[in-house]
Amino acid sequence: MTETLTDSDGDPQANHQDASAALELRVRFGETDQMRIAHHGSYVLWLEAGRVEWLRQRAMSYRAMEDEGLSLAVAGLEVRYRTAALFDDLVQVHTRLVQLRSRMLRFEYRLIRADDGALLATAATIHVPTDRAGGAVRLPQHWLEPLARYVEES
Amino acid sequence: MTETLTDSDGDPQANHQDASAALELRVRFGETDQMRIAHHGSYVLWLEAGRVEWLRQRAMSYRAMEDEGLSLAVAGLEVRYRTAALFDDLVQVHTRLVQLRSRMLRFEYRLIRADDGALLATAATIHVPTDRAGGAVRLPQHWLEPLARYVEES
Amino acid sequence: MTETLTDSDGDPQANHQDASAALELRVRFGETDQMRIAHHGSYVLWLEAGRVEWLRQRAMSYRAMEDEGLSLAVAGLEVRYRTAALFDDLVQVHTRLVQLRSRMLRFEYRLIRADDGALLATAATIHVPTDRAGGAVRLPQHWLEPLARYVEES
Amino acid sequence: MTETLTDSDGDPQANHQDASAALELRVRFGETDQMRIAHHGSYVLWLEAGRVEWLRQRAMSYRAMEDEGLSLAVAGLEVRYRTAALFDDLVQVHTRLVQLRSRMLRFEYRLIRADDGALLATAATIHVPTDRAGGAVRLPQHWLEPLARYVEES
Repeated sequence: MTETLTDSDGDPQANHQDASAALELRVRFGETDQMRIAHHGSYVLWLEAGRVEWLRQRAMSYRAMEDEGLSLAVAGLEVRYRTAALFDDLVQVHTRLVQLRSRMLRFEYRLIRADDGALLATAATIHVPTDRAGGAVRLPQHWLEPLARYVEES
Repeated sequence: MTETLTDSDGDPQANHQDASAALELRVRFGETDQMRIAHHGSYVLWLEAGRVEWLRQRAMSYRAMEDEGLSLAVAGLEVRYRTAALFDDLVQVHTRLVQLRSRMLRFEYRLIRADDGALLATAATIHVPTDRAGGAVRLPQHWLEPLARYVEES
Repeated sequence: MTETLTDSDGDPQANHQDASAALELRVRFGETDQMRIAHHGSYVLWLEAGRVEWLRQRAMSYRAMEDEGLSLAVAGLEVRYRTAALFDDLVQVHTRLVQLRSRMLRFEYRLIRADDGALLATAATIHVPTDRAGGAVRLPQHWLEPLARYVEES
Repeated sequence: MTETLTDSDGDPQANHQDASAALELRVRFGETDQMRIAHHGSYVLWLEAGRVEWLRQRAMSYRAMEDEGLSLAVAGLEVRYRTAALFDDLVQVHTRLVQLRSRMLRFEYRLIRADDGALLATAATIHVPTDRAGGAVRLPQHWLEPLARYVEES
């Protein structure tokens, strides 16, 4: 829906990500709607779970960040739906951190059906670090540094 | 997040919409998350409810459309979060149809807190008419014509 | 599913509740599943919204209770599903407080389709007052007293 | 909340279930609420996912059942919440089929936190086999027979 997403869709490298580094999840029955497909709102929770796993796989814990009183509040969300995910499909959430500043992060995602490799959706989220009161803050060094190691230009 | 959204945000006319024509809903407790704000995924359901009410207020029933075997599948979603909505906030979903073709519709939204008029979020959704099997179809005339009366350029 | 629920189902008085005292909500599209009915999990959010409105209609605010650091944590939940609710159905949530102790509350519910008066579900929830740390506490007098005025034996 | 649940809680055998036969899932951020715990409604989706995995692990596919036009509609639900599940907790859903008739099934569940073995909740669901039109039907033999092999008295 944006240039950035379109570019990333066409990026052949994006297909070469290590599948082991992605979250795999099953589409739950309650995530479907009466169109007999996964409801478009369900994807938002999958992206979020993808981010949390992405951090865990890089030795960072979003739970620990939250316990410190720091959150990555979502300031923007874009999803482009390609192929409908169905109940019980195994979905891989491939996540990349594509922009990192002390006051803004951008993640991009590709959702792939494990079974046939179909591209289900591409997505992006923009985040603002906030404190417990919800105010925007700078990401402290002990989070910024490990994150910086994993930025991939989109 | 896109030009279109940015433009619509700056559009003074958008503030003059008839409030009576919008859906009002309460943020449910289960729609919050541990940041003590409405979870960003909840907004997606509010937009959807906004579309359904927008149609009803114009004598069109999305339920009737579905009963005909026709759906407005979501192909794209963009949300820009401005101010956090809180539990029990009364949220107005202002909806506009800004683009209409037989194979594509675009709705835009402004979410406003009733209490203080705060802009909570702006959003857009892109839809593709589909049949019961999920295949893209042209919107039939008896839906296209009434919809065409309500297109507002963004 | 329990004696109490069965009794309340058979109680003719329960049908005479003032409809104006109930919450009315529309079944959202995203609340359906691929059986083309409202997903059974959606009802849990409706019960919760019913409790919050029940309090508001009696000049008590659950938001204010939460702002004080007090919550009515859910310790038990029972739902008996009777007739499937469909997308866009208007659902009335009739709520009653049937038991009140300083450390336990029990609410009972009847979900009615506004259109034809069909009984969609009966339900009950059991609550334990907790503080912000999640520990069980006694409900303070300034909550216990107003609540006590509205207890209806089931 | 019922005798059956209470009995099953006290059943030492229930603790000896093969952990490998249970579904393990992570509590998603969006599944929390502002009490900083998993929302009680989230558990309903976990039970459902537990049933689906229970079937898969016994060479039955709920997706295949749905594709045949057969559903296990939920007629009853009971949950007793014991210890709050938190964001990012790893939750095991232990599922048992405890009653099987051609027109009714009852599943029971124990939700355990993997980390410390804490019992998060016990639950039960009652199901009625339905056809695509939502009418109650008898479970056909080719489903009844494999299911019958796995009934465990509670």
